[in-house]
Amino acid sequence: MNNLDLSSEREITARAINSFAHTHDARLRFLLQTLVGHLHQFASEVELSEAEWLQAIQFLTATGQKCDDVVRQEFILLSDVLGLSMLVDAIEHRSGVEATQSTVFGPFYIAGMPERKYAENMALIPGSASLITGYVRDAAGNPLPGAILDVWQTAENGQYSGQDVAQPHGNLRGRYRTDEQGRYAIRSVVPVSYPIPTDGPVGDLLQASGRHPWRPAHLHFMLDAPGHRRLVTHLFNDDDPYIDSDAVFGVKDSLRVVYEPRFASDPLAEQFDIGTDFHIATFDFVLEATA
Amino acid sequence: MNNLDLSSEREITARAINSFAHTHDARLRFLLQTLVGHLHQFASEVELSEAEWLQAIQFLTATGQKCDDVVRQEFILLSDVLGLSMLVDAIEHRSGVEATQSTVFGPFYIAGMPERKYAENMALIPGSASLITGYVRDAAGNPLPGAILDVWQTAENGQYSGQDVAQPHGNLRGRYRTDEQGRYAIRSVVPVSYPIPTDGPVGDLLQASGRHPWRPAHLHFMLDAPGHRRLVTHLFNDDDPYIDSDAVFGVKDSLRVVYEPRFASDPLAEQFDIGTDFHIATFDFVLEATA
Ligand SMILES: [Fe+2]
Ligand SMILES: [Fe+2]
Repeated sequence: MNNLDLSSEREITARAINSFAHTHDARLRFLLQTLVGHLHQFASEVELSEAEWLQAIQFLTATGQKCDDVVRQEFILLSDVLGLSMLVDAIEHRSGVEATQSTVFGPFYIAGMPERKYAENMALIPGSASLITGYVRDAAGNPLPGAILDVWQTAENGQYSGQDVAQPHGNLRGRYRTDEQGRYAIRSVVPVSYPIPTDGPVGDLLQASGRHPWRPAHLHFMLDAPGHRRLVTHLFNDDDPYIDSDAVFGVKDSLRVVYEPRFASDPLAEQFDIGTDFHIATFDFVLEATA
Repeated sequence: MNNLDLSSEREITARAINSFAHTHDARLRFLLQTLVGHLHQFASEVELSEAEWLQAIQFLTATGQKCDDVVRQEFILLSDVLGLSMLVDAIEHRSGVEATQSTVFGPFYIAGMPERKYAENMALIPGSASLITGYVRDAAGNPLPGAILDVWQTAENGQYSGQDVAQPHGNLRGRYRTDEQGRYAIRSVVPVSYPIPTDGPVGDLLQASGRHPWRPAHLHFMLDAPGHRRLVTHLFNDDDPYIDSDAVFGVKDSLRVVYEPRFASDPLAEQFDIGTDFHIATFDFVLEATA
């Protein structure tokens, strides 16, 4: 390579960045010009070959085509395993306020799932019974009655309803609400660890990188309360073998909960009509006020 | 934002890069770790919001889903309008040798098109007749008999056959071969400028950026000769109004040719059985030897 070549490569980069100079929206202009700069810098730094570029084109195409309109979103999975989703989450939630930490949204949320009563069982297929309970509060410690907790988790086969069409509609999904004391209670099954889907391009990427696809067991939450910022987070099973190697980098220490064993004879079992041995986890959410 | 937040963002980036440390293939490991670093740096630098990230996910998904198995490759188009394709082309063809310059491959090539005789007309629909002729040589000036010139161009409606299903199979496509003197001759129609497809995500991007989608008129070539490096290039019409603002940054001055007008009475018209007024362009290709 000689200087002439390198200068013409820089010239291509300069022209590409400059081509976005007339983008009307200033924020979009900044995003596009910065992105093009970084993509070109990457290609120059690694001296990307045409064969590698074509493989990337094919990878991205296959990633888009693996997405469906229901629950499979391979580009979110890709963003997750590259740690980008967690980074964007961290940038979005820069804050000095003491509130419950957020984590990745993930690709498996479905809107409009059934409203659930206090302590209603969202496990429509029997399994290892669980009870998750606690308060939703504001940063000052005041309880928030009527807060909505939209929750979702996999079945014991590691698949979400919607993803696994054999499961009944709304299985292990639902929208709970805090009572007048700001308490919530969710009857379910103990979450299990599961691999993210590996039958697509993201699975190939993990395979080629010697990475496992497992996520530690967790329960997804999206919390909303009037006057408060939406919180998207998980509660992770403290004792999960993958707790330190989440394929999508989602674990934060403050989101780990212990599922404690209780007998069927426990007073709580009668109060919540559980009828079997079960596990209980408790967690208090703190929401940040808006403005 | 405070230092604590920033350090945890850096921690996410470090963990994401480190997660690829066990990638077996050293080149892939380097590519992935460098790419993840640049993507994270981009997100941090622009403080990418979740809403913007989600818009990017949707854009990439739509780009993948716009691709078909025939001629529409929206990710190549995206790479083209970001100047990445030209950059990769420049990196791949760093060379001190005096050879014909390359340019972008583009998304509209179809393999296995008809073999054409010397000076055969590949325009199966009549139009403004053209003749392109010249030599294929090595860097020392020796003619290369039997070199293959795989060529493709749009019809006068700006669409390629395959893309435009109304055109007959193989229209304005074909594989020519140099004769024993190393000469080629292609009967066709004069290329026209055309917009890249704007009915997909890339069109939306250009629209939002205030960029036009036009490419100056050109004829695509892929040249192969034994013992020589494949050359992918275009010949551009010198007088095209978009010659200085190609939407995909493909123009190089050395690839501009003039189409000169000739009357139907010209001796060449008789030699090549043209029968009408026509335009002629001449260009000599120089191929680089392998090893
Ligand atoms: Fe999950
Ligand atoms: Fe073209």
